[in-house]
Amino acid sequence: MKIDVNSDMGEGFGVYKVCDDEKLMEVVSSANIACGFHAGDPEMMARMVRLAKRNGVGVGAHPGLADRLGFGRREIPVDAEEMEQQVLYQLGALSAIARAQEVALSHISFHAAMGNMINRDAALAERIMKKIRAVDPDLIVFSMPDMLIEKAALDCGLKVLNLFLADRAYDVKGQLVPRKLPNSVIKEEGKVRARVRQFLEKGTVTTIEGETIPVRARSILVHSDTPGSLELARTVRSEVEACGGSVVPAREVVA
Amino acid sequence: MKIDVNSDMGEGFGVYKVCDDEKLMEVVSSANIACGFHAGDPEMMARMVRLAKRNGVGVGAHPGLADRLGFGRREIPVDAEEMEQQVLYQLGALSAIARAQEVALSHISFHAAMGNMINRDAALAERIMKKIRAVDPDLIVFSMPDMLIEKAALDCGLKVLNLFLADRAYDVKGQLVPRKLPNSVIKEEGKVRARVRQFLEKGTVTTIEGETIPVRARSILVHSDTPGSLELARTVRSEVEACGGSVVPAREVVA
Amino acid sequence: MKIDVNSDMGEGFGVYKVCDDEKLMEVVSSANIACGFHAGDPEMMARMVRLAKRNGVGVGAHPGLADRLGFGRREIPVDAEEMEQQVLYQLGALSAIARAQEVALSHISFHAAMGNMINRDAALAERIMKKIRAVDPDLIVFSMPDMLIEKAALDCGLKVLNLFLADRAYDVKGQLVPRKLPNSVIKEEGKVRARVRQFLEKGTVTTIEGETIPVRARSILVHSDTPGSLELARTVRSEVEACGGSVVPAREVVA
Amino acid sequence: MKIDVNSDMGEGFGVYKVCDDEKLMEVVSSANIACGFHAGDPEMMARMVRLAKRNGVGVGAHPGLADRLGFGRREIPVDAEEMEQQVLYQLGALSAIARAQEVALSHISFHAAMGNMINRDAALAERIMKKIRAVDPDLIVFSMPDMLIEKAALDCGLKVLNLFLADRAYDVKGQLVPRKLPNSVIKEEGKVRARVRQFLEKGTVTTIEGETIPVRARSILVHSDTPGSLELARTVRSEVEACGGSVVPAREVVA
Repeated sequence: MKIDVNSDMGEGFGVYKVCDDEKLMEVVSSANIACGFHAGDPEMMARMVRLAKRNGVGVGAHPGLADRLGFGRREIPVDAEEMEQQVLYQLGALSAIARAQEVALSHISFHAAMGNMINRDAALAERIMKKIRAVDPDLIVFSMPDMLIEKAALDCGLKVLNLFLADRAYDVKGQLVPRKLPNSVIKEEGKVRARVRQFLEKGTVTTIEGETIPVRARSILVHSDTPGSLELARTVRSEVEACGGSVVPAREVVA
Repeated sequence: MKIDVNSDMGEGFGVYKVCDDEKLMEVVSSANIACGFHAGDPEMMARMVRLAKRNGVGVGAHPGLADRLGFGRREIPVDAEEMEQQVLYQLGALSAIARAQEVALSHISFHAAMGNMINRDAALAERIMKKIRAVDPDLIVFSMPDMLIEKAALDCGLKVLNLFLADRAYDVKGQLVPRKLPNSVIKEEGKVRARVRQFLEKGTVTTIEGETIPVRARSILVHSDTPGSLELARTVRSEVEACGGSVVPAREVVA
Repeated sequence: MKIDVNSDMGEGFGVYKVCDDEKLMEVVSSANIACGFHAGDPEMMARMVRLAKRNGVGVGAHPGLADRLGFGRREIPVDAEEMEQQVLYQLGALSAIARAQEVALSHISFHAAMGNMINRDAALAERIMKKIRAVDPDLIVFSMPDMLIEKAALDCGLKVLNLFLADRAYDVKGQLVPRKLPNSVIKEEGKVRARVRQFLEKGTVTTIEGETIPVRARSILVHSDTPGSLELARTVRSEVEACGGSVVPAREVVA
Repeated sequence: MKIDVNSDMGEGFGVYKVCDDEKLMEVVSSANIACGFHAGDPEMMARMVRLAKRNGVGVGAHPGLADRLGFGRREIPVDAEEMEQQVLYQLGALSAIARAQEVALSHISFHAAMGNMINRDAALAERIMKKIRAVDPDLIVFSMPDMLIEKAALDCGLKVLNLFLADRAYDVKGQLVPRKLPNSVIKEEGKVRARVRQFLEKGTVTTIEGETIPVRARSILVHSDTPGSLELARTVRSEVEACGGSVVPAREVVA
């Protein structure tokens, strides 16, 4: 079974870093590269592309709101036109940096508040997916299952890769339990391994309420911005492989 | 005779504007659109592309240093890798915004300090032109004649369109007289008209010292960031047409 | 009768300007100087202080949210601690720049979204007014009448100067009619003059519904960021003087 | 003997950090707090002041050039007026944030390129020191010995505290050996301890050439932006105390 393991990369700025991108790039199969608005800068983006290329990792855009101070987590009021152009701007910027290294972008994955805002507005999701398709019809859209981004992407003919989070608790509705609630983040390696195994073998996850629900996904998202993220990524990858899965970039999973 | 008339456009930011882009876009044939570093923002860039498309104006990237406070006029120390990635980032950003409107970029024109820094460093010019070619081999590079940017662009197979400034004094070496010196800027409409006519009919310009020197150029650059720039552009265009020239976008001049 | 006429000043950035600060500074008696977050930069702030000093104009801080792209008009989510520190930061910055020119700040006037957000949250208003008082107990707080900012300022012992807008329609509740609605902005000079006269002589304003309501204010705010603002300011000032009023800085009005 | 141990603090931004400010604040006696231009933000500055107050640490401003991308290490061209206002702006900003916590600033220490640029221009140094004095005559200026900043500060009546770097090699001229050269940074704890001891007991340092030269200083600067900086600070402090010195804030050293 082919499974993608992806992570947000290059989310530093200038001298700042949030993770060991070099090491993490050796573990994941797809990199969602920050595009300079919530994080990242041109030189850092180029470095990420270089690392990804060297490691056979798929390169994707990780656009966010223009909000460096808030790391793209704050819902800054922007209208649909502004949101569209901010997405296109960042997508194009990374695309050119990648193309100069003979790398084609494989996917797009929206950051934090930008993703949340698009997922709440069907017209906005449709508008943006259509423009992404106009710019690059081969891009794969990363999305949690059953979100407006997924629907809009599929409706306009873009491919979608659904995400599973091995270290985050789900509720019975299939939603992530907010980080602020107790037990929302699973930290024990054994539990993470068990969840990866259950996801791969049965296509299910056990919710925080103790129920078993199906999870439709082919890519596992591992966080990069918390201590221990590198170990988490290694755990996820090794468990996928222990289950007989092979970790491959998004394009090979979707093809 | 086909002549391009170009101007820097969209050099505002948010609520700020530096010229009447709407009106100026009706006069020029090529627009060098600021790409968000020294000026411009994604929504403004999209607006400029829309205006250009509506007016049949060629769309080009006008990248600058990441220096909004200094309007890209200050020589910020950046190494070659940073400069390269800053160029690619901005070029790609505008390219995607344009493509979403079914517009292909026609050219690139470097802003202020970025252009000056590249023009002083042959290795840097070569490096950046090669990468521009890798990203878009059809782009036309705008350049003053006999500069390193022109040489590097031609050397790697990019087309070049040379610029003439009708409202700026030249010295005997063919260099622009610095703005700070007296008589460096020609403001009288009659004199500007005479210079356009001389340039078109004889391919020469009379220097500040009173000598006549040849000027190799097929595009006239009109400033947008000074009072009266709209009138200047109209003067230049009408004189070109009065001389029997036709004002057409860069791609038609170079083809 | 002593009346203050105030305006927001120095709301440009780098090469950008929104009004003719030099000329406007000759008309107003108090200047609310942008402090570098929504607009303004250190050099521009210093220039505004110099102009104000030369013209005998009172110098006040005009802090806004850290939102240059949105000109401080967007409600960026910030918690109370962030809002407090952003206010103090900007207040202190202008204060030092002014002190170096031997000018003491006379007042503070909140910009756009920052003011709106504080005016909706009594605890926040109280928190911020207390800290302003801790930093400079002599500062006069500019406020529309009957707002939380006014109440919180008075409660903690700060002086308040209430504002009247001569060119904006009021409704029967004494609120400004939103700019987007028809007839919300009064542009005819004659009408502005009549409103100034009515305000000065009777302390009332005629609402958009045609009713007459009292207006408690001693300072007239004239916008600086629209075409014709300089003429508006001159109209207001000359009408105040024609009514026998004298235009003086906030400190003389409040004293 | 009273010795100050100081470090640059709060040099992160938003989610970014460069050191463990909480722990480091327990070791140093003076904190040079980044003021939002090269690093730092209002909330972070307030947090640093709070930590400093709690630990009895002296609070100083650490202004830098407006260059977040380059962390204030790039020499951005600014004229004397801009530099002056950028210093005053940052100084005032931190001052108000501190005053709201009933903390008075004790000192100012210039960051990287800003310090280097002032140290190369006697007129600039004089201009800026005079304005600092006008704003706060009690501020202590931190400076390497025999620099223009020291001279200008003393000339205008400001107090100066000279710095010694225990982990950096000096040359025979008393200059720091540039970081890029071999053996410029001393990493072994034993060697750092020996240098601290020699500095305290004899007032000298052994240069990279092996000569012994006098070092005039009463404060030891420990870097915060490199791995191991916390341990370095602890080493320096414990060695000062082992030598019978007492680690106290700048104001007590200078008094």
